[in-house]
Amino acid sequence: MTDVPRLAVFGLVGMPEVSPGDDLAAAIALAAARPGSELADGDVVVVTQKIVSKAEGRLVAVDPDDPLSHKPLVEAESVRILRRRGELIISETSHGFVCANAGIDLSNVDRGFAALLPEDSDRSARRIRDALRHRFGVDVAVVVSDTFGRPWRRGVTDVAIGVAGLRPIADLRGTHDTYGRELQVTEVAVADEIASAAELVMGKASGVPVAVVRGIPSAWFGTGSVRDDVVRAPADDLFR
Amino acid sequence: MTDVPRLAVFGLVGMPEVSPGDDLAAAIALAAARPGSELADGDVVVVTQKIVSKAEGRLVAVDPDDPLSHKPLVEAESVRILRRRGELIISETSHGFVCANAGIDLSNVDRGFAALLPEDSDRSARRIRDALRHRFGVDVAVVVSDTFGRPWRRGVTDVAIGVAGLRPIADLRGTHDTYGRELQVTEVAVADEIASAAELVMGKASGVPVAVVRGIPSAWFGTGSVRDDVVRAPADDLFR
Repeated sequence: MTDVPRLAVFGLVGMPEVSPGDDLAAAIALAAARPGSELADGDVVVVTQKIVSKAEGRLVAVDPDDPLSHKPLVEAESVRILRRRGELIISETSHGFVCANAGIDLSNVDRGFAALLPEDSDRSARRIRDALRHRFGVDVAVVVSDTFGRPWRRGVTDVAIGVAGLRPIADLRGTHDTYGRELQVTEVAVADEIASAAELVMGKASGVPVAVVRGIPSAWFGTGSVRDDVVRAPADDLFR
Repeated sequence: MTDVPRLAVFGLVGMPEVSPGDDLAAAIALAAARPGSELADGDVVVVTQKIVSKAEGRLVAVDPDDPLSHKPLVEAESVRILRRRGELIISETSHGFVCANAGIDLSNVDRGFAALLPEDSDRSARRIRDALRHRFGVDVAVVVSDTFGRPWRRGVTDVAIGVAGLRPIADLRGTHDTYGRELQVTEVAVADEIASAAELVMGKASGVPVAVVRGIPSAWFGTGSVRDDVVRAPADDLFR
């Protein structure tokens, strides 16, 4: 009988409101101290971009009475505009992400402020991971997640914009299917799938900005980066 | 204290090899009879496209010695070719899916055959759901999943190509963030996120073609269709 992995996915309740300069790892460790929420070695801790941006002070004052006041920021944070329709801008950010409004939005931020993406969300993930490891004694991988749209399909899904302690792409080249044939579609974006799984327990309205995914195969842990491993170079991209 | 949803995701081991005409619901019910794998009302059963296509006889004989023998099928199954690079074709299928090779591949199929997508994978999902409900007495939602690439990011993720008993898009319009501000990014593709969560326990090589996601909020259950609710009309799409 095959040993099938079994995942548990749960949100961390009791995270405080996050402000610039706050110690995210300490806040996560505190929320994880609640019975039933304890972190374990080998867990993946998924942290939404918004609280990372807030903790890192990536907030910009905007006119609170103008719902489009963040649009000039979108242009400033973009290295390339791919599409415009009405007020919607799809652009490429300095990180290489292609998303709406350069990842900037006004939800779950104090009125009068817009939150930019972290400068380097792989580094953000590493800092949280290192702090959880060295100060709180738990060896977890960290994913920083954000909510992106995509072409061709309606609706948004959460993806990984930063990782630490996790290889974001599981490369199955050289492995074989159940018929013994070598697999051709071989690079699975497991960090994005983990971010999506976490979103299912976080929601957009529920005030649960951190979730834990438990049961990920140990082979997926290791050194990796969204920027280096997931972002597709424009030259390799058929749609840029 | 907020009541946070908690998901369990597990694969069904012991699924038999599937051949044309096989009764998928019966095979799922049998695999789910193993201790620890029992289905419960409110579960989402995620079934990979490949076994649905096989059960529905969507197999076409191809030259077993030619690794590109399925390429003429790709053109026949496409209504529009979006991009070509080398042997890779990105096209739109009759269902409205945009994916590589019209969703046709050779992995996990008997040598000498290629598997086409189901004709109507929402209908496929409905049939499985109805059979599990009426013949096996369990009220679950069903997602038929497939593995698609995407622009801008490396790696593939699993998405929903058919649903039954589930609204594939959770519409949060009218709900508010934790600051009381009305949410703007409001349509979450939960069926795709469920498919991605399930992929994490299925893998491509492990012979686990069915997984169960337990703990999905009851509000997401209902009537829905990938074709009607998720597929974006070309006119609404900025990248077609």
